[in-house]
Amino acid sequence: MPRLKLIVAYDGTAFAGWQSQVHRNTVQDELERAFHKISGAHVRVHGAGRTDTEVHALAQCAHVDLPSRRLSAGSWSTALNATLPPMVRVLRSRYVSPQFHARFSATGKTYRYRIWLAAILPPLELNRAWHIPQPIDMDLLVRAGRMFVGKHDFAAYAANRGKKEESTVRTISALKVRRRAPDVAIEISGDGFLYKMVRLMVGAMVRVALGKMRVEEIKNGLRSGRAHSARIVAPGHGLYLVKVWY
Amino acid sequence: MPRLKLIVAYDGTAFAGWQSQVHRNTVQDELERAFHKISGAHVRVHGAGRTDTEVHALAQCAHVDLPSRRLSAGSWSTALNATLPPMVRVLRSRYVSPQFHARFSATGKTYRYRIWLAAILPPLELNRAWHIPQPIDMDLLVRAGRMFVGKHDFAAYAANRGKKEESTVRTISALKVRRRAPDVAIEISGDGFLYKMVRLMVGAMVRVALGKMRVEEIKNGLRSGRAHSARIVAPGHGLYLVKVWY
Repeated sequence: MPRLKLIVAYDGTAFAGWQSQVHRNTVQDELERAFHKISGAHVRVHGAGRTDTEVHALAQCAHVDLPSRRLSAGSWSTALNATLPPMVRVLRSRYVSPQFHARFSATGKTYRYRIWLAAILPPLELNRAWHIPQPIDMDLLVRAGRMFVGKHDFAAYAANRGKKEESTVRTISALKVRRRAPDVAIEISGDGFLYKMVRLMVGAMVRVALGKMRVEEIKNGLRSGRAHSARIVAPGHGLYLVKVWY
Repeated sequence: MPRLKLIVAYDGTAFAGWQSQVHRNTVQDELERAFHKISGAHVRVHGAGRTDTEVHALAQCAHVDLPSRRLSAGSWSTALNATLPPMVRVLRSRYVSPQFHARFSATGKTYRYRIWLAAILPPLELNRAWHIPQPIDMDLLVRAGRMFVGKHDFAAYAANRGKKEESTVRTISALKVRRRAPDVAIEISGDGFLYKMVRLMVGAMVRVALGKMRVEEIKNGLRSGRAHSARIVAPGHGLYLVKVWY
């Protein structure tokens, strides 16, 4: 079966996340519905990773096995974009070897988390950044972020760990804070991310920057694998999947 | 009666424009409803100008006469923002003299028009820019824009002129094209704008840049007051009211 690789962008506001769910509309559902409308075939779309409700993607990656090579890769993009709602766009598509797997072949991901630091959130930033009206200490935010860089056990920064036997060790290769006040973007690259890991990391950084937690507590959490006293999961609508690395 | 001046931002996507309408939700309606909820009084909110369906505002200006000075100007902002939907925000408010009128005291306005020049419109730009997938000639776009600068009769760039006796002479003090491909922004300042004038100007600029019209036709339209053969009204969702000058 020919395998097609897709690069997909979406506005997370309209969806209950990436992964197919009963009674809720997801990006995967939209794509599978579009493939069905175009080809009549029921296919399964495999994403590089799930994104949660409200989380955006600038370039999610996915693969799908097609019954035939009837259409060129470019024609698939065109046909899918003509069928999908405008909140989901296929940016690129190409046929890949059956060895390629959107999830298992990925060597890393880059996420961006946006924070809006002002008393009032501009209407056009609604659902696109975490609005924090209180003043925060930017230097502490940067210092807190630095704690995460490197290879650590991120057990304290994972939610709902189902299979406890799986390794929770991950490597964060880069964490950069870009300030263009009131717009702050935290860009995080790593070899893999546990469930809600980015949002728990950002939640801890913001708690430190608000003076509600010491930087050392992050270090302790990474050392002990135990979560610090009060965890915040930063809201999904500030999170963007920027790139999947292969 | 104490007069309050408001600076208001909104996401136009959610509204049938600024001005109150029967059976359709507008920004003015939202503000008047919020004033009523807070004070019990039925007030009329006067905007500096109407914005059409889908048109955004970064800083619309309005005034309102209040029954009393019961609340400070800052408290009005806070109370309004607590009552309004998040797509409308009061950025600032202050008491002004009864001589101030949001519409008649205005000496000019600045608008921005955003165009997205790429085969695919990113989902997060939906309803925020005019998507033009065809290649356009940027130099022609700039040259076409230059034609509008100065004092001209803009009769050819106005829609639905009700009162024909009113002057259609306006002065465009500046028109700048900022290119950060694929994102193009046209910023236009002038002493006043006729109905749909900015969108008709941008429509003509794009027609020239697409090679469908000569630059000279713009000059002729401004000289004769007669519209050129085929007019395009650029879509409302690419337009932003940036500032009202007093």
